[in-house]
Amino acid sequence: MNLLLLEEADFIAADRVILRDRRLTHMQEVHRAAVGDSLRVGRIGGLMGSAELVRLEAKEAELVIHSLDLPPPAKLPLTLLLALPRPKMLRRVLQTVASMGVPKIILVNSYRVEKSFWQTPFLEPEAIREQLILGLEQSRDSVLPEVIIEKRFKPFVEDRLPALVEGTLGLVGHPGDYPACPRGLDEAVTLAIGPEGGWIPYEIDLLAKAGLQPVQLGARILRVETAVTALLARLF
Amino acid sequence: MNLLLLEEADFIAADRVILRDRRLTHMQEVHRAAVGDSLRVGRIGGLMGSAELVRLEAKEAELVIHSLDLPPPAKLPLTLLLALPRPKMLRRVLQTVASMGVPKIILVNSYRVEKSFWQTPFLEPEAIREQLILGLEQSRDSVLPEVIIEKRFKPFVEDRLPALVEGTLGLVGHPGDYPACPRGLDEAVTLAIGPEGGWIPYEIDLLAKAGLQPVQLGARILRVETAVTALLARLF
Repeated sequence: MNLLLLEEADFIAADRVILRDRRLTHMQEVHRAAVGDSLRVGRIGGLMGSAELVRLEAKEAELVIHSLDLPPPAKLPLTLLLALPRPKMLRRVLQTVASMGVPKIILVNSYRVEKSFWQTPFLEPEAIREQLILGLEQSRDSVLPEVIIEKRFKPFVEDRLPALVEGTLGLVGHPGDYPACPRGLDEAVTLAIGPEGGWIPYEIDLLAKAGLQPVQLGARILRVETAVTALLARLF
Repeated sequence: MNLLLLEEADFIAADRVILRDRRLTHMQEVHRAAVGDSLRVGRIGGLMGSAELVRLEAKEAELVIHSLDLPPPAKLPLTLLLALPRPKMLRRVLQTVASMGVPKIILVNSYRVEKSFWQTPFLEPEAIREQLILGLEQSRDSVLPEVIIEKRFKPFVEDRLPALVEGTLGLVGHPGDYPACPRGLDEAVTLAIGPEGGWIPYEIDLLAKAGLQPVQLGARILRVETAVTALLARLF
C-alpha cells in the first residue's frame, strides 16, 4: 500500500478521517505507523496529498488531511477486453490492470472460458472493487477503472463492440502468423486478450469484423496476467 | 502446462518414458488425456517434439516419443539482477521470468530485502528448479535458466558485476527523474530490478559504478512481478 485511499464514508469533517478496516491493520502491521507520521493519501475519484496520523488505537485511527491537491497519474488511452480468467487469476489481473492505469475493462465470455468461472463470488461488484483498490494503492492512483461484464460474446462483439472500437486502434493479442504487437503508441487502443488456450478461430473472425486485428508477441505462451502486462508495457 | 518436460530419469528406452509425478496428475486431471493422445514434449536441456500416450494407469503413464527435433525458442539476450523478493512473490517471479525466456537470473541482497526472506525453503535448488520448470512448461521452452544467489550486495556489485555488464547495455529500473526505459532493443542487456520500496541511493550509486544506468517506467509503482514483466516486454 503506497497510497492510503479514502472513501467518502471515512470523513468525519472536511479535513479529518477515521479508519477502522483493512487499512488500519495495514498501517499497524506493515507500515508500523506512529502518531505524528505523515502518510500519502488519496480521495477515491479525487485528488491525492498527505495526512498526519493524529490518533492510533487498537480499533481505529484518526488522520488530519494536510493537503489534497495532486492530480492522480494519467490513465492509459485503452479499453481492455479480457476473456474472463479463472477466479484466482481474475483477482490478480484486476489488481494488475488497475495498477497499470487501465481506465476501462470489459470481462467477456469466450468458448474456452469454463462456465464455472462465471459463478465466482470474485465477480460481485464489491469483490471487484476491492481488487481494483489494491491495485490503485500499489501504484498511487485514486481513480477506479470501470469494469463491465459481458456474459454473451456474440451479441456484445457484434452489437456493442464496433462503437467502442471506433476512433481507436483495435487489436487482439493472439499467437500465430500475425504482425508483431506495435510499440510505444500515443493513440487510443482497444485491445482484446483471450483466455487460457486462446480465442477460437470463430471468435477471432468476429473480433476482426468488429475492428480488432490480431497481433502476436512471439512463440511463447504466457499466462494471462503476464500477457496482459507485457502487451500494455509494449503498446504504451 | 503447454509442454510436458521430460527428465533423463523418465526414460526407460531411447524413445520411451514413464511418468509418475505431478505431470501424471496434470495429464489426468487438467488435460484429461487418453491413450492414443499426442502430447507436446520437450527434453530438459534438449529438443522438443511430440509423444503418444500409450498406457495410462492410476499411478503411472507411459509415452512413446515420436519426434524430438524442434529447437526451443530463443532466450532473451539478458542477465536479470533481481533483489530477492518475498517468498510468495519469488515463486511467481521465477515462473514468469522462465516463461519469458530470461536465461540468467541473479538473486541479490538489498537494504530493503527483509533478512527473513533469505530463510525461505523456496530458495533451495530443488524448489527453484520446480518453479522454473512450471514457467518453461507454460511457455513451451526446454532450457532451464541459470539462477545464481548473491547474498552480499557490495562484494557482488563491486567485484563480480562489472565483468557481467561488460559488452552489454547496463540498466537499473528505478522510479525518479531518469531517462525512460528504452524500447525494442536488439543488443544484450544487464538489468537490475529492486525490492519493494526500491533500491536505496547508496545501492543506485554502486550499481551505476558497476555500469548500470537508472531508467524509469513512469510514476506508477508496480509490484515486482509486474515491473519485471513490463520492463522485459518494453526492452525486447
